[in-house]
Amino acid sequence: MTQTLRTQPLSHDAFAPFGDVLEIGDTPDMIINQGLCGRFHDLAKIDLIGDGARTGISLFNAQARSLPYTLEMMERHPLGSQAFIPMTAHPFLTIVAPDVNGKPGTPLAFQTKHGQGVNYHRNIWHGVLTPLAEPGLFAVIDRIGDGNNLEEHWFETPYLIIGA
Amino acid sequence: MTQTLRTQPLSHDAFAPFGDVLEIGDTPDMIINQGLCGRFHDLAKIDLIGDGARTGISLFNAQARSLPYTLEMMERHPLGSQAFIPMTAHPFLTIVAPDVNGKPGTPLAFQTKHGQGVNYHRNIWHGVLTPLAEPGLFAVIDRIGDGNNLEEHWFETPYLIIGA
Repeated sequence: MTQTLRTQPLSHDAFAPFGDVLEIGDTPDMIINQGLCGRFHDLAKIDLIGDGARTGISLFNAQARSLPYTLEMMERHPLGSQAFIPMTAHPFLTIVAPDVNGKPGTPLAFQTKHGQGVNYHRNIWHGVLTPLAEPGLFAVIDRIGDGNNLEEHWFETPYLIIGA
Repeated sequence: MTQTLRTQPLSHDAFAPFGDVLEIGDTPDMIINQGLCGRFHDLAKIDLIGDGARTGISLFNAQARSLPYTLEMMERHPLGSQAFIPMTAHPFLTIVAPDVNGKPGTPLAFQTKHGQGVNYHRNIWHGVLTPLAEPGLFAVIDRIGDGNNLEEHWFETPYLIIGA
């Protein structure tokens, strides 16, 4: 029977086992540009392995989804972290799961607010990019290099993600 | 006497001597996620030098400016490239200049459109982050590490940047 999961607002604490929330806080780490700009410094754990791997910047353009959303598959990248920076003010879904014996356990579904990106840590189960509005345009900072960096798991019974 | 510079739309060809325009084109390099997402792959030349340097993701929150804009200073980073990804749909100014005997020559001012980010190549003269609307929120992919990675040049006579 399909299990229903409710979204929750994305927060550092809840997301910490899976990755980094990329957002500004109240106080910048540095004030630069003659006081006109705050720098929130070094927010993501970029973690790449494998010979010749390097960090790259790509753009993803994904079709918007809506709630309720059927989660049929999750994936992970054994060779590298992967960060998603929305290039709009729109929210998106970020779905993660703990690993249980090489498969995703029960997923957690988060909905972002404007100004939040995420960085999935290396080898963390996550759903594919799921913007909630068009255009689903993101900058992606991930591993460029050879090697098999994608593992997928298809659920026998999909999950249904519903709003909070 | 103050020299006036007109903005031009940001384009790959005009920007190529200074850096990379980070934007999607008509045809993705790869189609992923069961056909629902296009990947525009590896768009930025990330170029870091110096022992122990690594790539990081930071967020910048800058005050919005408006045109006409007075350009008093340009800077460059001798140890690394620096990419700016807007987290809104708003345009921003990106001002670059060729190097002439260790100083910026006549600047070029570009105005972005939605969906464009930039990556300044290492040691290219550029203006500070100048969003044209609030919030001036950007993800910045640049060098994390020790060393003096900032050189500033203040113009004796500022430039005045006006709209196209």
